[in-house]
Amino acid sequence: MKFILTILGSNSAVPAFDRFPTAQILQYHDKKYMIDCGEGAQFHFNKYKIKPSGLNNIFISHLHGDHYLGLVGLISTMRLNGRTEDLHIYAPEYLKKVLDIQLKFDDREWSFEYVFHNLDFNESKKIFEDAYLEVFTIPLDHKIDCNGFLFKEKPKQRKIIAKKIKEYNIPFEVIKDLKNGANFELKNGDIIPNTDLTEEPAPPKSYAYCSDTKYNESIVPIIQNADLLYHESTFMHDLKTIAGERFHATSIEAATIAKLANVNKLAIGHFSGRYKNLQPMLEEAKTVFENTELALEGTVFEI
Amino acid sequence: MKFILTILGSNSAVPAFDRFPTAQILQYHDKKYMIDCGEGAQFHFNKYKIKPSGLNNIFISHLHGDHYLGLVGLISTMRLNGRTEDLHIYAPEYLKKVLDIQLKFDDREWSFEYVFHNLDFNESKKIFEDAYLEVFTIPLDHKIDCNGFLFKEKPKQRKIIAKKIKEYNIPFEVIKDLKNGANFELKNGDIIPNTDLTEEPAPPKSYAYCSDTKYNESIVPIIQNADLLYHESTFMHDLKTIAGERFHATSIEAATIAKLANVNKLAIGHFSGRYKNLQPMLEEAKTVFENTELALEGTVFEI
Repeated sequence: MKFILTILGSNSAVPAFDRFPTAQILQYHDKKYMIDCGEGAQFHFNKYKIKPSGLNNIFISHLHGDHYLGLVGLISTMRLNGRTEDLHIYAPEYLKKVLDIQLKFDDREWSFEYVFHNLDFNESKKIFEDAYLEVFTIPLDHKIDCNGFLFKEKPKQRKIIAKKIKEYNIPFEVIKDLKNGANFELKNGDIIPNTDLTEEPAPPKSYAYCSDTKYNESIVPIIQNADLLYHESTFMHDLKTIAGERFHATSIEAATIAKLANVNKLAIGHFSGRYKNLQPMLEEAKTVFENTELALEGTVFEI
Repeated sequence: MKFILTILGSNSAVPAFDRFPTAQILQYHDKKYMIDCGEGAQFHFNKYKIKPSGLNNIFISHLHGDHYLGLVGLISTMRLNGRTEDLHIYAPEYLKKVLDIQLKFDDREWSFEYVFHNLDFNESKKIFEDAYLEVFTIPLDHKIDCNGFLFKEKPKQRKIIAKKIKEYNIPFEVIKDLKNGANFELKNGDIIPNTDLTEEPAPPKSYAYCSDTKYNESIVPIIQNADLLYHESTFMHDLKTIAGERFHATSIEAATIAKLANVNKLAIGHFSGRYKNLQPMLEEAKTVFENTELALEGTVFEI
């Protein structure tokens, strides 16, 4: 099963060139996880043919408008559409006030609840877990409290070697135990070790989302070996000083983090409105980390 | 000088077919007036080449999300762009809480102030006046408190008949008085009455914005003879009962109000997401009021 990441928006705060602010949807099995929800995100569900069904968890990095202003509209629409599943929101505490004041001022009945989970920003913590995934915060270095998020597949079961089932006449009901690492006892009492019957599963895949942040090597151990890293790249590297002052990163800095963390692929986004053509930014990042792609609106990454 | 009305969005609350929720810009001389500000409105300033300069007054009809959720993003962007002029917002009182909680939680300095003007909903009142225009509320009949807005040119000065200036040797410095209705005294003491020297000005133009509302004839005297009426038309007339229950209007009802008020032109909008093709709705309205047009996104009405 693959992770599928769809970029709904990746511009920075000032609107430019019909690019929308930050929002992403991560799909895995039948579940969807939303990462940030900039203004207008709900309009892209239609555009990119993503149904809101299965979207039960939304993760908000920080409270600059370009990362959360689409949330009230999205929740209002879910309400108008008669959603019934609870919606969980993982975000800085203050966002609850913002949501409550806008969503609870009319007295219509709710067909679902939104359940708020306060995040803190001091250290990387596991904040979510379901049958498939675990999510950990990645404390970032931004002007205000800000977390990235690491989405990590749970360790998979071992893979049965098909021909061994026939060879040892293994009954169906023990397959589950073998996948979990059990040995197999033959009728004569001999023990066949699990490693003779099964193979290592594929290593768990992971996706690291890091926006917004200045260059910050302390995140490297958390995102080590991620299959995909999204890292903000607001500026090209000639504006390194401005980037630092504004707690943002450059293309070269994003690529350097990708290299240090030995990730498989880097996606850059959160582009400043000063750049119409983003190819030079991509080329610049590639001088440090070759496997880089622009996280343009509508781009789908298969992890 | 013309009024120019640009539709930035005219869909109802549930997003559909890439149509954006309600927002309009009225331009007159060098001034811009915004009417409602649904989510994503700020992105359309670029798209329709409208500069935010000269936009100092925003009028919000009511607090359903599809009419105001773009406001925090728009104001945040003005702040990022270093705006300096005060911004006046005319809206239901509760909106101030919503704005304050989102705009005042960070401690950056403001380069401008937003000035909030509470509206009430009991009777039509003049709420705004500048050198060119007066704005009056139009109390509507919606699920929650809701005002439409009547934008009315101020009475114009009388027009000087050019050949009379030569005929009576009228000096430049009295022209202003003549435009305001003064008579002219010749050197021999004879009085030339103003009506011999000037002509009636064109009657003041007006634009009436009426969304959201159920069918409500009590607005007719307020919007009488408007040059352009925007009236909501959420449903086609076969859904008249649902429209009434939800405090919305149908195409036929919008057209009937236009006819009763003897307006020059009707623009219909606030379309339900159930209608992909809006031509049948337009045709239906035209059976009652011929000079009707769809207020589609990007449409420009010259009043």
